[in-house]
Amino acid sequence: MILSENIRSVVPYVPGEQPTETDIIKLNTNENPYPPSPEVTKLLHNRDFSLRKYPSPEASELTSAIAEYHHVKQEQVFVGVGSDDVIAMCFLSFFNSGKPILFPKISYGFYKVWAELYKIPYRQIPLDEDFRIIPKDYFIENGGIIFPNPNAPTGLFLPLEQVESIVAASPDTLVIVDEAYIDFSGGSALPLVEKYDNLIVTRTFSKSRSMAGMRIGYCIGSENLISTLNSVKFSYNSYTMSEIAIKTGVASLGDDKYFHSTLKKIISTREKTKAELSKLGFDFPDSRTNFIFAKHRSVSGKQIFEELKKKKIYVRRFDADGISDYLRITIGTDEEMNELLVQLKNILG
Amino acid sequence: MILSENIRSVVPYVPGEQPTETDIIKLNTNENPYPPSPEVTKLLHNRDFSLRKYPSPEASELTSAIAEYHHVKQEQVFVGVGSDDVIAMCFLSFFNSGKPILFPKISYGFYKVWAELYKIPYRQIPLDEDFRIIPKDYFIENGGIIFPNPNAPTGLFLPLEQVESIVAASPDTLVIVDEAYIDFSGGSALPLVEKYDNLIVTRTFSKSRSMAGMRIGYCIGSENLISTLNSVKFSYNSYTMSEIAIKTGVASLGDDKYFHSTLKKIISTREKTKAELSKLGFDFPDSRTNFIFAKHRSVSGKQIFEELKKKKIYVRRFDADGISDYLRITIGTDEEMNELLVQLKNILG
Repeated sequence: MILSENIRSVVPYVPGEQPTETDIIKLNTNENPYPPSPEVTKLLHNRDFSLRKYPSPEASELTSAIAEYHHVKQEQVFVGVGSDDVIAMCFLSFFNSGKPILFPKISYGFYKVWAELYKIPYRQIPLDEDFRIIPKDYFIENGGIIFPNPNAPTGLFLPLEQVESIVAASPDTLVIVDEAYIDFSGGSALPLVEKYDNLIVTRTFSKSRSMAGMRIGYCIGSENLISTLNSVKFSYNSYTMSEIAIKTGVASLGDDKYFHSTLKKIISTREKTKAELSKLGFDFPDSRTNFIFAKHRSVSGKQIFEELKKKKIYVRRFDADGISDYLRITIGTDEEMNELLVQLKNILG
Repeated sequence: MILSENIRSVVPYVPGEQPTETDIIKLNTNENPYPPSPEVTKLLHNRDFSLRKYPSPEASELTSAIAEYHHVKQEQVFVGVGSDDVIAMCFLSFFNSGKPILFPKISYGFYKVWAELYKIPYRQIPLDEDFRIIPKDYFIENGGIIFPNPNAPTGLFLPLEQVESIVAASPDTLVIVDEAYIDFSGGSALPLVEKYDNLIVTRTFSKSRSMAGMRIGYCIGSENLISTLNSVKFSYNSYTMSEIAIKTGVASLGDDKYFHSTLKKIISTREKTKAELSKLGFDFPDSRTNFIFAKHRSVSGKQIFEELKKKKIYVRRFDADGISDYLRITIGTDEEMNELLVQLKNILG
């Protein structure tokens, strides 16, 4: 029996359920209700991929397309197996000072898990009573900072000048702005990357680009930071991105018209859903993402969650302090949201 | 500027070149010269994958197919993005005692890199003068043990009873047998997994299954060990395997006839190539893999390497102590090896 001192003990992140039934309405993991660009599907059906060979270890074709898309240098782009892979690599690469890293108390649950995995001390900074990030709370000694913008699961957007104040206040440590949902919001911190050499902005193809199943994430920062990330990545796994991921990623970036048309549809559905949820007695922060974090004024989150599940509608609920009455509801199609509203009316009856 | 104390300093593993020209003979990264099973290609062309949704976080369909293939329980199988991902997860999960882990001095270069990445102390155990692993050298206090069988880049196979002696001598620490090349050899340590709860056997789809481009690796061990690995994996990235990787992996496992026919061809080409290299004045350990680690009796490895490259034939050379005159030559098709032999004759002329 292997001695327990040899074994890393961790409490893993628990992702939203991925039920295998197909007759459900799945609003629990912030997936995009629309398929990826038809260019992606076309490529998959028509192209022969050379599976017998290793892919490009640098995934050069993809980093080059991302660089062009965002008007940065290719040397400023790092890609990984979803933004989780990218952010985990950032934790391992840049959070080594022994001082606590900072992140919001209500935020993406994985930050705490990565910190514990890599034995990085951390401090969770409370939000204000309206779930807002207060920048000055981060103007303290730290080993690094990470927060999502818009924040998850609250959906709230932090204006760019406030993001900048956090980056500017900690010039000696890395600040990661996790922009998983920024395409539904606007106001990216990417322009700040040229000004601050302690800033990394992370993105994902999983939400706005409808490619959760392909596992593509990336980040942008100074050439120095990206070069360090690449050294750490090449000390972990030479080849993380398959040729299929590389080529379909490039195809998605090439179809900006389709991309913006699905964004527009989701944002429109989100705003309609907000109005209806309000009428049904829900309160929620003003989401700038593809989900709404909502709490009913009289019925418990647990009860609504369970009733919806009986109706085969899956939403997400976090059994944590101060948010256990909230439901995180992904924006689906108009039809899916209408069905959700019908069922909510029945439940709240 | 981020303080250097915050930044992890590493010397990454350098994989073999992946040149983009197509008119070369590529014998430098131990890729399979034959494509994957036609079932894999058929699936890619004909199936619609739901890319907008996250894949199964447990990659259950693939772990189930692997379990069935090897006659073990599904709970004994862990999958990852190539065996590099799997082995790196094992290092992070099980090599935490602070005592040095052991691996052969001439072996897969990544072991040292992972140890340094995770700040795990290590000790490299010399091979004997014929490049053999001597089991009793590993019968010492350790924080874990890893070695490939057959070893790379030597190609030498360690008989199962000698593998078992190493596993049996360190019951309190994990022993990883890295079987990346075992399909070209036979004599797997998999049957020992039932007997020893400190053994993990790792495998890859990259070599014998011609799927380097798809990034699939796995390992098999006791349910306890695999459960720990899953906790660590779920503390790193919920979704590492795309639906495409999962389904094509299952398709490959389902076509055993094709699998064995390509193995047979490669082994036959290897044995023919050995005979010819011998005639040309090369010495080499008796490879049981899909490569030959060969040294010419009079001409330097560096010279042959460079002359071959001029002829657009890429092989691998490691500029390391004691092996700098050796070339690691991947077994290609008969035609590719014939062209290699023609060019070697010219060079050695």
